[in-house]
Amino acid sequence: MSVGVVTEQSLTLDIDFRLESGRILKPLTQVYETYGTLNADGSNAILVAHAWTGSAHLAGKSSQEDSKLGWWDAIVGPGRLLDTDRYFIICPNVIGSCYGSTGPASINPKTTKRYNLTFPVITIRDMVRAQALLLDHLGINKLVTVLGGSMGGMQALEWGTQFPDRVASVIALATTPAPSPMAISLNAVARWAIFNDPDWKKGEYRKNPKDGLALARGIGHIAFLSDESMQSKFGRRYSAKDGIFDFFGKFEVERYLNYNGYNFVDRFDANSFLYLAKALDLYDVALGYESLSEALDQVKSPVQLFAFTSDWLYPPHYTEEMFKTLKSLGKDVEYHLIPSPYGHDAFLLEHETFTPQVKSFLERVSRR
Amino acid sequence: MSVGVVTEQSLTLDIDFRLESGRILKPLTQVYETYGTLNADGSNAILVAHAWTGSAHLAGKSSQEDSKLGWWDAIVGPGRLLDTDRYFIICPNVIGSCYGSTGPASINPKTTKRYNLTFPVITIRDMVRAQALLLDHLGINKLVTVLGGSMGGMQALEWGTQFPDRVASVIALATTPAPSPMAISLNAVARWAIFNDPDWKKGEYRKNPKDGLALARGIGHIAFLSDESMQSKFGRRYSAKDGIFDFFGKFEVERYLNYNGYNFVDRFDANSFLYLAKALDLYDVALGYESLSEALDQVKSPVQLFAFTSDWLYPPHYTEEMFKTLKSLGKDVEYHLIPSPYGHDAFLLEHETFTPQVKSFLERVSRR
Repeated sequence: MSVGVVTEQSLTLDIDFRLESGRILKPLTQVYETYGTLNADGSNAILVAHAWTGSAHLAGKSSQEDSKLGWWDAIVGPGRLLDTDRYFIICPNVIGSCYGSTGPASINPKTTKRYNLTFPVITIRDMVRAQALLLDHLGINKLVTVLGGSMGGMQALEWGTQFPDRVASVIALATTPAPSPMAISLNAVARWAIFNDPDWKKGEYRKNPKDGLALARGIGHIAFLSDESMQSKFGRRYSAKDGIFDFFGKFEVERYLNYNGYNFVDRFDANSFLYLAKALDLYDVALGYESLSEALDQVKSPVQLFAFTSDWLYPPHYTEEMFKTLKSLGKDVEYHLIPSPYGHDAFLLEHETFTPQVKSFLERVSRR
Repeated sequence: MSVGVVTEQSLTLDIDFRLESGRILKPLTQVYETYGTLNADGSNAILVAHAWTGSAHLAGKSSQEDSKLGWWDAIVGPGRLLDTDRYFIICPNVIGSCYGSTGPASINPKTTKRYNLTFPVITIRDMVRAQALLLDHLGINKLVTVLGGSMGGMQALEWGTQFPDRVASVIALATTPAPSPMAISLNAVARWAIFNDPDWKKGEYRKNPKDGLALARGIGHIAFLSDESMQSKFGRRYSAKDGIFDFFGKFEVERYLNYNGYNFVDRFDANSFLYLAKALDLYDVALGYESLSEALDQVKSPVQLFAFTSDWLYPPHYTEEMFKTLKSLGKDVEYHLIPSPYGHDAFLLEHETFTPQVKSFLERVSRR
């Protein structure tokens, strides 16, 4: 069952929030949604961390008329994997995003103008440190688990290493301890596409730079899919409307990238896209530690890791490296390699492939 | 030993060259280089087919002062794999290119202006049919072999299937019977990058649209490399000149893509890039046949196929499919899977990995 109509909440803290870069963010606003009821001792909370272009709208509808469900609705609700009859689920929008939390499109109170490129570069660690303040506000000392895929998985890893006493478990899907140069390259050309757009105006646009942002998203889509999923979805089919020998004729896969790219322009801010791409590229769970091993040695809770066979953006061997490291440190860690043709997107498209394992893991850690 | 100083040659045929699209190209110019001496009966010729942004300048120097050698110099010359003491080597620039053969930057004699987008869409088959006319002109009835990698490999396949009586053997490296939707997608976003550049002006530019073309090439570079080669070449190293928290700070791999992208603008025409990308995407050895099997059944000569383990642009399984099909048709075919971390570029970077096999293959087919 779905959670029904949900109202977005917001917390603004008028504090000097010091970022990893040393710069200060003030005030700090975080938009979030919650589902279920927090119990008296605040011990039934789960945090779900969203990916790059996600939002706090994890589950349910925003209004009775809303036809679109939250981005991971399938796993949240009464009787679902994240059972709202039992757990209190929180999904915060990350800082740097454009869905309500403080980001480059927010107004800088000092100038009364949008931050745009004066917004500080933020890190995944900054996002998670902001979320910890949100938990303080909600009266939650320790989470049952923190769960997320892709950039959400990075946040889960940061929770496990930076706040080991505040999580009873960590679940990270389709993620990496640090993006590879291949993953960085794909973000680099996506950035470049926006930088090339004269409508971007070094971030001082009034309207999203659509051609650049659409192309950037098109590049992203390639990274999220796989050769296999593209083969079964599009093959080499050519648009029926175009002539094979038309210079501008398109393959179906090309139309798909175009269509989705331009759709994206209506729902995401170009500067936020750039700041979050930067946060992704800079992500390194071992930042500030001597080694991956030293970083992962901070973890005190059980960890469950998932990778998907056809994910070439964050290939399974990077997750396996974390698994082996945690194992060698004697940590309580599970690793599941899920066979899937859906590439990086598998974690969103095929929740049934990991639901049973997450369910057992949650049962197990709840018994501890 | 290198072949030394080489002079480019050119053949212009004032004929109606009918393309696969039905459109006519007139006149038809092909620039080419040759190395070694054609024997009396024209039976010692080898054609080397270049890839996307290659040229006729396969080997040697263009002048005594030239510090740069041809693009595959390492395998051409006295005593080298393609031994110029024995063979007569021909390397034609493909039509559609910008290195002398008729392409979108050529002058349309009807309008006395550059073709630009009025240039017809061409196919790999068109390129090869033009090359056959060049052989007629040179007095070569049958080639000892035709050899090429990537788009050059597609040309080799077309020689084998379209002119089975004119080739004594075929050698195709790092290629595919038809690009996958993943490969098409990568070209699609590269095209998109050029279309987005206001300086492209729908092909009517006076100066190459540099930002778009550089980005297009940057995207190409990603496809030509591999996660493994990027890891060993760049890892996650950050530019020493940039601050980690600078919005425009770059990883080394990002600088590399930028640098090579902008360098490319000086040496390749944007419209040619687009027309050749189109030819690549449209390529299908089975076009006009019922199946891959029917297409490959045209082949009468021995075929040697090479794929490289880390080539994710044209992954080995596509070459394996051709190998199995040829094998099941009872053809004389060899397949070599070369372990390499260099991705698609391996065929250019690691000639020593396939030289021995090509050498034996040539010995074998020469004895027939």
